[in-house]
This record gives sequence, structure tokens and C-alpha cells, in this order.
Amino acid sequence: MSTETLTVALGARSYPIVIGGGLLGCGFDLSEYLPGPDCLVVTNETVGPLYLEQLRACLKGARIESIELPDGEQYKTVATVEAVLDSLVAMRAGRDTTVVALGGGVVGDIAGFAASCYMRGVSFVQVPTTLLAQVDSSVGGKTGVNHAGGKNLVGAFHQPRVVLIDTDTLSTLPDREFRAGIAEVIKYGAIVDVDFLAWLEGNMARLLARDAAVLVTAIRKSCETKATVVAEDELEAGRRALLNFGHTFGHAIENVVGYGEWLHGEAVATGMVMAAELSDIDDASRQRLRTLIEAAGLPVVPPAVGAVKLRDAMQTDKKAKSGRIRFVLLHALGDAFVSADVSDAALDEVLRAAGS
Amino acid sequence: MSTETLTVALGARSYPIVIGGGLLGCGFDLSEYLPGPDCLVVTNETVGPLYLEQLRACLKGARIESIELPDGEQYKTVATVEAVLDSLVAMRAGRDTTVVALGGGVVGDIAGFAASCYMRGVSFVQVPTTLLAQVDSSVGGKTGVNHAGGKNLVGAFHQPRVVLIDTDTLSTLPDREFRAGIAEVIKYGAIVDVDFLAWLEGNMARLLARDAAVLVTAIRKSCETKATVVAEDELEAGRRALLNFGHTFGHAIENVVGYGEWLHGEAVATGMVMAAELSDIDDASRQRLRTLIEAAGLPVVPPAVGAVKLRDAMQTDKKAKSGRIRFVLLHALGDAFVSADVSDAALDEVLRAAGS
Repeated sequence: MSTETLTVALGARSYPIVIGGGLLGCGFDLSEYLPGPDCLVVTNETVGPLYLEQLRACLKGARIESIELPDGEQYKTVATVEAVLDSLVAMRAGRDTTVVALGGGVVGDIAGFAASCYMRGVSFVQVPTTLLAQVDSSVGGKTGVNHAGGKNLVGAFHQPRVVLIDTDTLSTLPDREFRAGIAEVIKYGAIVDVDFLAWLEGNMARLLARDAAVLVTAIRKSCETKATVVAEDELEAGRRALLNFGHTFGHAIENVVGYGEWLHGEAVATGMVMAAELSDIDDASRQRLRTLIEAAGLPVVPPAVGAVKLRDAMQTDKKAKSGRIRFVLLHALGDAFVSADVSDAALDEVLRAAGS
Repeated sequence: MSTETLTVALGARSYPIVIGGGLLGCGFDLSEYLPGPDCLVVTNETVGPLYLEQLRACLKGARIESIELPDGEQYKTVATVEAVLDSLVAMRAGRDTTVVALGGGVVGDIAGFAASCYMRGVSFVQVPTTLLAQVDSSVGGKTGVNHAGGKNLVGAFHQPRVVLIDTDTLSTLPDREFRAGIAEVIKYGAIVDVDFLAWLEGNMARLLARDAAVLVTAIRKSCETKATVVAEDELEAGRRALLNFGHTFGHAIENVVGYGEWLHGEAVATGMVMAAELSDIDDASRQRLRTLIEAAGLPVVPPAVGAVKLRDAMQTDKKAKSGRIRFVLLHALGDAFVSADVSDAALDEVLRAAGS
């Protein structure tokens, strides 16, 4: 299987995404991306034992320290970022240090935010090991942690120097997490690429079986779409907001049931179904999206917490602009747009119809 | 007295510095710099009672919340930043919120860092009320807090939308703090402008008497120099480091005696004398700088803590690059450069000769 390389085009901050099997171990040399010899690898108690030694082989000649975080979204906090910063101080890390994230989205978000604020910014490398992180959170430079008041409320834009995606790491990913990652893959089709959606419909069974070639294609297409959107709008002034399709509902679900109860991808999957309900599209399109999400083994109905709680959580969500909730809606499958013109009545109807 | 306006030229992130008397109250309308109606004013228990109401008059039509921090460098911590973030969450601040810093450098650094990481960055306005903040910390976008391992180790580059300098606020500034601010004013002359240094020699008595016209000139010249250097090198890849003249020694002094014991400007003043000792310049130039610093009533000898402690603190300082301490030295008065080639022996000699 070949290695594929994409570029996220951000001028002086452009960086490659390298995708393939066998990159960890001795398959890829990361050292050209390190401004100096010092590296802090940030990983967690689940991923570290599996892949830290293999990652070391990609960092020849570096002085490597590592920190193993507890595993789980509930640790995506300022306190955990402080623990990473303490590690950097303890190793007397200078400005030419590189922070390397080895793990899923939570590890990447924490490590990236720590890298962004240590000495006002040191180099950062992403080595995502979950499907969700590989197709979404490792690309684009969003970093941050949760606050009791909302998800990802505290963070920074901090682009990595390189994203290294070894698809072999997916072999150890639990099935539920793998399926959750597929939610974001489906999202790219839904918002800008109906052909990719059709390809997913035809290949979902092989994707779920983690067929190597199908996996590389799904990840490459997802990263391509994300890289294109991010390059057009790095700081989310406009078009980048499309990537939040399903996320306004999804974040509210995560917030209300408590982070970690529902996986992010599961909440987004249900959120996409709800966003489609809120969109002015034909029923056949809604059903098509719902069927694909169900085929991935993902939930399509929110938890029974009540419409009021979900709407309250949305108000605090960071996509609210002066109190007005913004939604990503569909003109059609593969054609999304941002709307702040959703009436309370229409929103309530969707929330109630969904049985929340 | 007229109002003067400078521009910090940073492309899309360019912003004005407005300098004059009587700007607070009804002298200046800040509302054109607010992307939305929500403002969080961050101030402290000393400055808030003096100037918060006057600032409100500059923010007509805004929905203003405020948070009053305890006063002192010892509160420049991640925990205080979290308190500001909690305030933003509590007011359900959206992305179009503006964080306004009203106070000295500590308030500006904390408020700016909170603004940089709330929702990955909201608008920020600086209203500095100390001389140090007016001539230095409010200009240039450096924000951050201290870590037990070193000063300003955690932070971000986050440019304000506008810097509003009302020189009338200096009337309530304690004398010791006022003198500490003069250290940074002298610094601009020492690093790039020997004519300004000569002007300061001729006007130090009037400056210490807080003569209004002399004050505006000193602040404008300082801001001009800082704005020029920052515009050339926003992220401190090169020339901006010149602004750290005296700061490698100064930060070490602050770190060893404990933040708040020596004022930042006092530590920098002594640091400049030590950096001049370390520089290959003639004794007359060294003496000239020392005399000017003494004329401002600032210390020229470090605390008696021992050379070893100071050198240890320097090693952790964020300007250390791969273990090598970088110093800003002088070719001559008004002509500074960055050097990583200072021998341990030369450094020890300066530390010992200074009686530390």
C-alpha cells in the first residue's frame, strides 16, 4: 500500500498530511520537522503502551520526554494542559522544542493547546491514532479544552508542522470509536461532496471491515476536503463553519449527557440527522443521509433529556453569535450553508419530533 | 494638550495607539472598535474604583460586565485567567465579545491571554493605566502569565484592536511604579535611539515631575519605537528580541527574589546595567547609561542572592534556545544586537562584579 501526501495550504504555515500503513516504526522520519532536538510526546495510558516505542523510531536523534495522560474526554481540561506545561518546564524546554501528540482527538487538542501557549507557541506534530482524529481533529489547527460551560470554549488556533497518519494504528481501535469516526467521514460527503457520499454508500461494509484500501481512500478524501476548507478560511470567519454540520446539536447532546457518555462522533451523527430535519430539503435526501448513518452503526435519535435542556446548551455553544444560534443546514446533500435564521418554533419542532 | 495617534502596522491586524489627556470620561469613543455589544472589562481592585466609571463612558451602548482582580504580579497565573474565562462563560459571551483591559501590565497580560483563548480568540482592547503598560506591555500583542518555572512561560500573541492611553491616569500612579516605567523608556533609547537617550538626559527632572508635555513625548517616542520593532517582527523571530535588553538579567532577578518583590522595571533597570557590563562598549557609555538610570531613581545593583541562583534562573528563561542563554548586548548606546555567544566566564564575572 502506497503512502499518500496532501498539503494544507496556509502560506508560511503550510504543512503536509502523510497517510499510509507502516509509517510508525521505521516507516517515516519525522526529524526534518523538528526545529531542535527536544521533543515532548503527549499520549495517554491506552495509546502510549501500544505505539510510543514505534513513534520513538521516527524521532531519531531527538531528546524525547513523554507524558501519559489519563484516557477520556473528561480529562480535556485546563488542569490537564497545565500538567503538560509542567512537563515542558521540568525538561527545561526551549522555544525550539516540539510537542508531539500521539493519540486521539482529546490528546491532540490538549497537546496542541499546550504547544500554542508554552512560551507563546512552540512547534507541534500530530500523530493521530483514532479514525476521528485522522479525518478531522488532527487537521486544521484547532486546539483546546472544555469548560463546564461548554465544549472547546478555551483554546487556540495552532497549526501542526506535519500530520502523520499511520492507518495501521486503527487495528487496535475499539469498534465503537471506529464507527464514531465514520460520522465525520459521512459529514464531508453531506456538506460538499455528494459523489463521496455515494462512494460511502457503496463501500460502507468494506469500510466497517477496515479494508486497508477503502480506509486510505476514505481518510484521504476526508482530509482533502478538510484541508481545502481550512485553507480557504483558517480562522473560521466563514466557510470553515460548514465543518460544524451536525455539531450544534451534537455539542449540546454531549454537554447535556456529560462529556464521554456519548462519543463525539455519535453525537454528531445524531446531530446531522437533526440538522437535515431542520433543512429545507426533500424527504428522500433526509432518508438517504439517515440510512447511511444507520449503516455505519451510528445513533440517529438524541437522548431523552428534553428539548429545553438541549436548547439551553446550544445557547452557550460558541457558535452562538450575540445570542443567535447558528446552524449549518443543507440546500441539498453535498451543498451546505450557515444559517442564523432558524426560528425557535422550527427548532422546537425538530427537537420534539426527535423525541428528546 | 493634543491627542496623538500612532499605528502598529500589522496588515489585517493593524491597530491604532491613541495617546493624550482626558480620553477616559467622554474624551474618546471606543464603540467603533467593538465587533458586538458585549464587553468584559478586566481591571483590578486598585484601578477599578478609580477609572471603571470613566471607561464606561467610552463604551456607550455596550453591554458591560466587569471583573476586578486582586492587585499584584503574584496573581498573574493560569488560575486568574480561568477566573476571567469563567466570567465570560457566565455572561454567555459570544465570539463577537470584546475583552477590555483596564489597568497595568499584569491586568493587560491576563486579560489578553484570556481573550486569546476564549473561543480560540475574541477581540481585545488595551486601556493601560501605568507608565510601564503604556510604553511597553500594552503594545505588541504579547500576553501571558507566569509559571513557577519562569516568567511569562504561558501565553499567546494576541493583538489588541486599539490601545487607549490616557496620560491623566498617571496622576494616581505611585511614585515607585512610575519610576519603574521609566526603565522601559530608557531602554528604547539604549537599544535603537541615542538621540532619545540624550533627550531623556535633558528632560529627566521634568519627566519625574510628570510634566504633561514631556510625558506625552516620552510615551509617544517609546510607543513609536516599539510599534516599529513589532511591525518588523511580530512573532519575535529576530529583531523584536532587542526589546528584551536588560530582561534576561531582569527576569532572573524577579524569579529569584519572588515576583512582586522587585518591580519589573526595577529588575530591568538593573538588568540593563548588567547587560551593558557584558557588552563590549567603552566605560563612558556604560557610565552614561548607569547615570541616567540612577537619575530616574532606579536600582543599578542586583539583590544579594548569589551568582549561581541568578544563572540557574536564566537557564529556564524562555529566551534560552537549546540551553544556550541569549543576551541583548550593545555595540554602542542606541545600537543593540542579540548574542548567544556569551561565555560562562564572562557572565560569571558580571554577576560577581555586580555583587550578587
